[in-house]
Amino acid sequence: MPYALQPIWNIAHICHKQGIENVIISPGSRSAPLTLAFVRHKNLKCKVVADERSAAFIALGIAQQTNKPVVLICTSGSAAYNYAPAIAEAYFQQIPLLVLTADRPPEWIDQFDGQTIRQTNIYGKHVKESYTLPVDLSHQDAVWHVERTISEAINLAKTYPAAPVHINAPFREPFYPPVENQEEEDINNYYENQVKYDIDVKIIEQIHSRPKIGTHYWEELLEVWNKTEKKLIVGGQMRYNERLISALNGLEITVVADVISNLHIVKNSIQHQDVFLMNREDLEELRPELLITFGKSVISKNLKKFLREYPAIEHWHIQPAGIAADTFQSLTKVIPLNPSYFFRKVLEKQTPFADSYRQSFFVDNWRGMDAEIKKLNAQFFEKQPFSEFEAVKKLMRMLPKSCNFHLANSMSVRYANYLNLDKDANKEIEIFSNRGTSGIDGSTSTAIGNAIADDETLNILLTGDVAFFYDRNGFWNDYLPKNLIVILLNNHGGGIFKMLPDAAKQPESDEFFVIKQPLNAESLSKEFELEYNFCEDKNGLKNALENLELDVEKRNRITILEVKTNIEMNTKVFQDYKKAVKFLEVD
Amino acid sequence: MPYALQPIWNIAHICHKQGIENVIISPGSRSAPLTLAFVRHKNLKCKVVADERSAAFIALGIAQQTNKPVVLICTSGSAAYNYAPAIAEAYFQQIPLLVLTADRPPEWIDQFDGQTIRQTNIYGKHVKESYTLPVDLSHQDAVWHVERTISEAINLAKTYPAAPVHINAPFREPFYPPVENQEEEDINNYYENQVKYDIDVKIIEQIHSRPKIGTHYWEELLEVWNKTEKKLIVGGQMRYNERLISALNGLEITVVADVISNLHIVKNSIQHQDVFLMNREDLEELRPELLITFGKSVISKNLKKFLREYPAIEHWHIQPAGIAADTFQSLTKVIPLNPSYFFRKVLEKQTPFADSYRQSFFVDNWRGMDAEIKKLNAQFFEKQPFSEFEAVKKLMRMLPKSCNFHLANSMSVRYANYLNLDKDANKEIEIFSNRGTSGIDGSTSTAIGNAIADDETLNILLTGDVAFFYDRNGFWNDYLPKNLIVILLNNHGGGIFKMLPDAAKQPESDEFFVIKQPLNAESLSKEFELEYNFCEDKNGLKNALENLELDVEKRNRITILEVKTNIEMNTKVFQDYKKAVKFLEVD
Repeated sequence: MPYALQPIWNIAHICHKQGIENVIISPGSRSAPLTLAFVRHKNLKCKVVADERSAAFIALGIAQQTNKPVVLICTSGSAAYNYAPAIAEAYFQQIPLLVLTADRPPEWIDQFDGQTIRQTNIYGKHVKESYTLPVDLSHQDAVWHVERTISEAINLAKTYPAAPVHINAPFREPFYPPVENQEEEDINNYYENQVKYDIDVKIIEQIHSRPKIGTHYWEELLEVWNKTEKKLIVGGQMRYNERLISALNGLEITVVADVISNLHIVKNSIQHQDVFLMNREDLEELRPELLITFGKSVISKNLKKFLREYPAIEHWHIQPAGIAADTFQSLTKVIPLNPSYFFRKVLEKQTPFADSYRQSFFVDNWRGMDAEIKKLNAQFFEKQPFSEFEAVKKLMRMLPKSCNFHLANSMSVRYANYLNLDKDANKEIEIFSNRGTSGIDGSTSTAIGNAIADDETLNILLTGDVAFFYDRNGFWNDYLPKNLIVILLNNHGGGIFKMLPDAAKQPESDEFFVIKQPLNAESLSKEFELEYNFCEDKNGLKNALENLELDVEKRNRITILEVKTNIEMNTKVFQDYKKAVKFLEVD
Repeated sequence: MPYALQPIWNIAHICHKQGIENVIISPGSRSAPLTLAFVRHKNLKCKVVADERSAAFIALGIAQQTNKPVVLICTSGSAAYNYAPAIAEAYFQQIPLLVLTADRPPEWIDQFDGQTIRQTNIYGKHVKESYTLPVDLSHQDAVWHVERTISEAINLAKTYPAAPVHINAPFREPFYPPVENQEEEDINNYYENQVKYDIDVKIIEQIHSRPKIGTHYWEELLEVWNKTEKKLIVGGQMRYNERLISALNGLEITVVADVISNLHIVKNSIQHQDVFLMNREDLEELRPELLITFGKSVISKNLKKFLREYPAIEHWHIQPAGIAADTFQSLTKVIPLNPSYFFRKVLEKQTPFADSYRQSFFVDNWRGMDAEIKKLNAQFFEKQPFSEFEAVKKLMRMLPKSCNFHLANSMSVRYANYLNLDKDANKEIEIFSNRGTSGIDGSTSTAIGNAIADDETLNILLTGDVAFFYDRNGFWNDYLPKNLIVILLNNHGGGIFKMLPDAAKQPESDEFFVIKQPLNAESLSKEFELEYNFCEDKNGLKNALENLELDVEKRNRITILEVKTNIEMNTKVFQDYKKAVKFLEVD
C-alpha cells in the first residue's frame, strides 16, 4: 500500500524537475512531511534557518542570485507571518519564491487548537497567487490537484514579472513516515529506501515567449525617435544585463544610470543626477522631449522631482508585460518588449543623426553637469573631517573589479547613489538593494543569501547600524558564507533623520526619529564568530580597507568592518557637500 | 489658518479621551505626523522601539497587562508587515491594539515610489476591521470621517472579544509642522505651542452591555445541571479572575485548571490532567456527563484527546458573545454569558446534592489521580540526573506569592503545565503565555511589555533557547524594565523535537528539527547590559535561584539566569517520567 502522504513527498520531486535547486526550511512539526520530502531528495540543497523572517530574506537572496525560485517551508501559525516582510520585498523586486506553509486541516481552524491562524490568502496582494492543497489525498483527483498546483505555482512564480507564490498545505497527523526499529548501521539505508519519489510525477512545463510588436508600431515609434533630438533614457532597478548595456552603448543618447540600475558601465551614462539636480532652479535645458524608461524604481529623488516638474512631451516605458508604473507622472506609452530587444532594434533601424547640434548639445549639458560632480566628489572630502559619506567614497573606490555590492536602506544606498561606481575600474560589479519595499528589515539576510548562492564571488554589504542590528538574526544559522564583508556605518542612530531638515528640527527628533542607540558590533561578532574590525578616523579606515581580504579563496569567515562616525559630523559634512554643489552651479 | 494636518493631530487627543494611555512608535518619516501628534500629547506615554516585530509584541504585553488598547505607530512599507506576528497573536488571545500604519496616498501605490506596499487590509482576517483614513482633509466631512473612525476603531478593539483594529493613514508631504528659527531657550515652549489639540474633538462613547438570558433558559439549564451528577468544568486560557474563582469555589464540582487558565487556586481544581491522562486506556470512570467550558485554548493535549474520545453527553461553552470553538468536538450548547456571572447564578439557584454518591465518587476519581501525580512530582526528580524539567520544578517551587509568570512556547509552557503552580504558596501568581498562535516569536518582548506596564510587580519569564534567541531584539530598546527575570533553559536546540518520538527517530532530526545551535546568552547579556547568571547542575541551580533578587525595589536591571542542560538527558528524564506515570497506574 502506498504511503498516505506519497503525493506530498512527490512535491519535492516536482520542484526538482521544474528546475528548483534551493530550499530554506524553518523547523516545525506540522511541516514535517514537507521537510522530510525535501531534505531526503538528493538533488535539492536544503538549509534550516530558525527565524522565519531571516529565512525568507535569505531565500530571497538566493533567488536573486540564481534567478530561480527558492522554496520556503515553515510550520503553521505565526511562522508564516514572519515571512511576510521578505515576501513583500520579493513581490516588488520581482523575485520568484515558492512559499509552502504547513497548516492544520480546515476543520480545525478557529477551534482553539494550538498554533492555528487563518492562513488562506495570508500574504494578501503580495503574492501572485495563493493555493490551498487538498487535505484528503485518497482520491486520484486530489493527487492530480496537488501535482498540477505545484507545477502551476512554479510556472507562475517564474513568468514575468517573477514573484512569490504561496501554497498552503494542510496536514492531519501522522506527519512522520512509519518508523521501525532498525540496527544502527542500517539506519541511513533504511530511511533512504523508506519512501521513494514517484518517477512519473506529472509535470506541466511552461514555455516562455518573447514579446514582439507589429511593423506599424515600429514605424510609429521610429518616426518619433528619429525626429526627436532631446532623448533621455532612465534605467530603474534591474540586474546587470550585458546585452542591454551593449545596445545602449551603440546609441549616442544620454542614459541616466541610477546606482541600482546596474548601467554604470554604459558609455554615455550619467551617474550623479541625484547631486546636480539637487535644489536647482531652471533646469529647462535638461528637459527631455522623449523620455524612455525601463526597470523598476530609482533611488534618485531629485531625478524624480525634476522629471515630474519638467515632464517630457512623450514618455515611453519598456517592459515585457503588465501594467506600468507612472513614476515620473509623464507616461504616454507602454511598450511591451524586453528593453535589450527594444534598444537593439532601435539601434538597427534608427536614422543616424549623431551630428545633430541640438542632440549633442543636450547630451553635453547632462555630461557637463555629471563631470563637474565627479570632480567635486574626487576633491571634496580631502579638507573635510571624517564622516560616513567619506567612508562610503573610500570603500567604493577600493572595490574590486568584480563583486556583488549590496546596499542597505536608507542612507547607505543614497550615499552610494551620490557617488556611484567607477565606469572603468568597477566593470563587473553588480549592485543589489532591497528597493522593492525599501525596508531596513532584511538587508543582511539578503546579502547572506546571495553569498551562499555563489560562493566564488565576493559580496560586500554596506549597511547602517539600525538596519544591521534590526536584522542581526541573519547571522543565526549554520551556513555563514566566508565570501561576505559587511561594512557597518555605525553612527549610533538612524542618521537619515538628521539629514531630513524638517525632522531634525523637531525637539523629539533624537528620541523618536533618530533613536540614538549605543550598540557596537563587537559582542555580536564574538557571538557569531565573525571577524571584527573597527575604525573611527581617516587613517584607521584607510588601513582597515587595505587589510580587507578580497580574495575569496583566502577568506575563511564573514568580516565585519565597523566604521564609527559622529552623527552630527556626518550631517554637517553632508550639508557642506550640498553647499558645495550649490556653489558649483553659480560658478 | 488651521494647520492642514490638524485632524491627524487630534487623533492623539481622541485616543487619550477614549482611555488610551500607551503608545509604541517605530521610527519613520511617513509616519511623522502621527509620531509628533502622540509624542507631544502630555497624557500619553510614548516609547520608541526600532524593530517593529518586537515593538508589536511589547505593545501586546502592555495591553495584556493594562486591559486597554495600546497604540502602535509605524511608517509605510514592510514595517507594517513586521507587526503581523504579534497582531495574529493578539487576535487569538483577544488583546486590544490600535494599529496605525502610515501610508503613501492612494495615487502613489504601485508607482515604484519607495517604501510603498499594498497596505489596505494588510492584516487580513487577523484584525477586527481595517480602516483607511481620507488623504484629503480639507472638507469638513473628511474631518468627521477621521474623528468617527478613531472612536469606532477604539470601541471595536475594546468590545468583546477584544482584538487588534487597523487604521491605515495615508499622508502627502509635508509631514512636519512648520518650523521657524527660534532662540535655543524658547524652543521647547515654541514646539509645545506650535500645534494644539482641538478641545472639542468628536468622541463616540461606547457603553458596554452585560449579556443576560431569559428565565426559561435558566430553567432548562438548571434542570440539566441539577439532575447531572458527573459534571466537569474545564477552563481555557484566561486572566486571573477573582469573582469567577470565588464562584467556582462555592461549587463542589471538579474544575480542571490548565496552567494558563489561572484557576490554580480554585479549591477543587485538578492540576495534573496532562500527566495522568497520558497514554492511559479505559478512562470511562473519568468521563463527564456534562462538560462546561469557558476561556480560550488549553495546553493539555492529553485532556483534549481524552475529552474527544470520551465525549460528554452535553457540553456547554460559556462565552459572552460570538461563535464558540468546538475544541473538544462535543459542543452542544453555547451560553452567551460571562463565566463568573453564570457560575454565581448557578451557585445561587442549584439544588444542593453535595452528598450525592455518584458526584462525590466522580470528584474523588479525578482528585485521586491528581493527588498521585502531585506526590510523584514531589519525589521524582530526587533520584534523577539534572534536567530542564527539574529546573522548571525548582523554579516553580521558589516563585514568590505574587508575580507575573510568563511561559514561552513550546516546552516551557508544557513543563509548567505538567507541574502546575502550588494552590496555597502561589496565591497571587498570574500566568501569561502567547497561546493565541502558540508562536515562539515574541515571548521575550511580550514579557518586557508586561513588566513595563506595571513596574511594581515582578515578572518572571521561563523560556527556551530557540524562543530566546529568536526574539532577542526585544532587548533592543531604551525601556528595559528592572522587574524582569528571564530563566533561559538552554539545551542548545529545539528540545521539543527530541520529545516527539516520531520526529526524534528521523535521521534528519538534529539538523532540520532540533536545529542544534551553540549560542549562550553571555554575549547578548553583555551587549544589552543585563545581569547574567549561569548554572548547569543541581547545586548551581539551587544557588542561582536562591540568589535571585525577588524584591522589585531592590532590583536594578533585567536578570538572565541561563540554565544549561543536556538535550539527550532532558529527553531521557522526560521519558523516565512518563514511565513512572505509567507505573503509577498499574500500582
